[in-house]
Amino acid sequence: MTNWTLAARAAKMNPSVIREILKVTEKPGIVSLAGGLPSPKTFPVEAFARACEKVLAEDAQGALQYAASEGYGPLREEIAAMLPWQVDPAQVLVTTGSQQGLDLLAKVLIDPGSKVLVETPTYLGALQAFAPMEPEVVSVVSDEAGARADDLRAKADGARFVYLLPNFQNPTGRSMTEERRAAVSAIAARAGLPIIEDNPYGDLWFDDAPAQALTARNPEGCIYLGSFSKVLAPGLRLGFLVAPKAIFPKLLQAKQAADLHTPGFNQRLVFEVMKDGFLQRHVPTIRALYREQRDVMHAALMREMSGLGVEFNRPTGGMFMWLRLPPALDAVKLLPYAVARNVAFVPGAPFYAGEGDPRTLRLSFVTASAEQINTAVAALAEAVREQVARS
Amino acid sequence: MTNWTLAARAAKMNPSVIREILKVTEKPGIVSLAGGLPSPKTFPVEAFARACEKVLAEDAQGALQYAASEGYGPLREEIAAMLPWQVDPAQVLVTTGSQQGLDLLAKVLIDPGSKVLVETPTYLGALQAFAPMEPEVVSVVSDEAGARADDLRAKADGARFVYLLPNFQNPTGRSMTEERRAAVSAIAARAGLPIIEDNPYGDLWFDDAPAQALTARNPEGCIYLGSFSKVLAPGLRLGFLVAPKAIFPKLLQAKQAADLHTPGFNQRLVFEVMKDGFLQRHVPTIRALYREQRDVMHAALMREMSGLGVEFNRPTGGMFMWLRLPPALDAVKLLPYAVARNVAFVPGAPFYAGEGDPRTLRLSFVTASAEQINTAVAALAEAVREQVARS
Repeated sequence: MTNWTLAARAAKMNPSVIREILKVTEKPGIVSLAGGLPSPKTFPVEAFARACEKVLAEDAQGALQYAASEGYGPLREEIAAMLPWQVDPAQVLVTTGSQQGLDLLAKVLIDPGSKVLVETPTYLGALQAFAPMEPEVVSVVSDEAGARADDLRAKADGARFVYLLPNFQNPTGRSMTEERRAAVSAIAARAGLPIIEDNPYGDLWFDDAPAQALTARNPEGCIYLGSFSKVLAPGLRLGFLVAPKAIFPKLLQAKQAADLHTPGFNQRLVFEVMKDGFLQRHVPTIRALYREQRDVMHAALMREMSGLGVEFNRPTGGMFMWLRLPPALDAVKLLPYAVARNVAFVPGAPFYAGEGDPRTLRLSFVTASAEQINTAVAALAEAVREQVARS
Repeated sequence: MTNWTLAARAAKMNPSVIREILKVTEKPGIVSLAGGLPSPKTFPVEAFARACEKVLAEDAQGALQYAASEGYGPLREEIAAMLPWQVDPAQVLVTTGSQQGLDLLAKVLIDPGSKVLVETPTYLGALQAFAPMEPEVVSVVSDEAGARADDLRAKADGARFVYLLPNFQNPTGRSMTEERRAAVSAIAARAGLPIIEDNPYGDLWFDDAPAQALTARNPEGCIYLGSFSKVLAPGLRLGFLVAPKAIFPKLLQAKQAADLHTPGFNQRLVFEVMKDGFLQRHVPTIRALYREQRDVMHAALMREMSGLGVEFNRPTGGMFMWLRLPPALDAVKLLPYAVARNVAFVPGAPFYAGEGDPRTLRLSFVTASAEQINTAVAALAEAVREQVARS
């Protein structure tokens, strides 16, 4: 018998609760409002096809060979230029999706037992990336404007960093106000507390562009994570981080050990697609589509949930809406009723670092069609009625 | 001032010594025998171009969307089918290059202080992938047939695993004989010692196919790492691992946390290119080219190094040749003399987990042309003569 002794940290790795939940929802004909998948309508397939041709015709050897761990130079320059504060391309590290950025910074910044601050609730994928490095994750009390400044001040001491998603957060869809950003930024700077700013959804605003990035306010005190998954396509796994000189070399060493470099072919594809202002033309079409879908879902919730005591928000961007069931209901218990009616969602509790609010759940408004959203929200309301009747 | 407190493991991460050394060698006109780059002549650019067209025409939504962490089903099936022992596709985990496989298994199997056994010398990238998890790396005495069975037996107790490259090893080019494989496999099985079998070069044989894989002899006791970097192209970052059921779920969880999944587009490209027997037609052309290059370099070394006391081998596959300078010489000190004569190589010492042999160095025979190899080896011999004269 082979003695496969696991590292202690392996016990901290768990199958994604969401993944396990979604297995329950896999049945034909179901409308899923559960996933975090961008609408495939938004994938610029033609542009990718042209880029593939061009890259393989003009630079196949470069695209297909081993390459520098930092990333493809011209792409790093495009990324630095697109960010609305002063960024040196030498600070840009191209990552295999922004999920990898979370993995790298966990390796570099978290010791077993290190205190790490997160929002309540927060992105589940970040909790999963941090977990193998065995932090003590502490939730900062949060409201509709994100992490609260007073609680951040109270918990900052000794923390390795605070992890924040200021724009259209996953899972809640909420954003930090300008006032909150200013307060949080000032507190972190005063406490010497590093901020990890994760911004996969910031370009997907419906009315106004978000307030200034936290990193722009204090570039030496923040690591910024960005992604092309929501504005181009997730299947290329292209993200990046921007880090100050104090920490960049260690992140680069971790990157090199993790996968040598992000695929050079993919980096060139994204460079070809994004240069010449393509994103400035393309992203507004995603915004318009998602805004319309948000409106459809919000109207459906107003109509169908009327009188049921279900609370929900109206995000001004992103992909997700956050619901809270009336007291005595439980989203995990609601799920089978919903699945029986051909609609799936994600319970909110797994998104909390500590004990989750069992009444919460997340709906995506971007993957299903308007018609499907209307049907699914009506079915969800029926499921709520049934659970109320039985409880 | 922001308080960027690094994790203790970050101190174990170091810039690649080779990377630093190679910076010294960056000058116009230099012939590099230093890198581990496949010959770009071997990249099947036409086949990739056709695959890009096909994938984007027929399955763009699948290729560009988020996907399962295990990998693309049809590719996992192709990989399982291509391996010459019974492999269930459910045991195949697609990785972002086989370097990522090393990162994942380090996370899952290494605690700080865990004993990990490696060959003398071994693949530097594996040492880098293991280092952040803070193992105690112990070198197994090795000879021209790889790790010695007697020393493995003596050191097996309490080790988490032994990491072996049985075919045309990086850096030495040596291979394990059938006899050695049988002995090592039996010792590991008896000791309950897991084997990590890394096989990036096994398809690049010149005369005969290598002896049976270690994993084939005891699938439940081994994790097998494979790569498409040397038979298709490294720039797609496509590798895989095959793991027994006892350990697969934890590796999958680590994979999900590391980058969610390997780019679905790249997985489909490789699937399209490899199906219908393309590799069976393509790989022999790589073997023929590399064999010829090996012959050129070996002949050049026989000719140019005559009488200098330089030892070297004649690998029967792979990409690398291993040299040993005469006593009193030192490869690191030789490098500037070589660079002055427009030839670069990699000193061998960084490939040792413990103290390295300063007289060793690695030459790649696959990236430079035959003409360049002849010129470069002559220049290297001149550099040796100069160092001898000055020492």
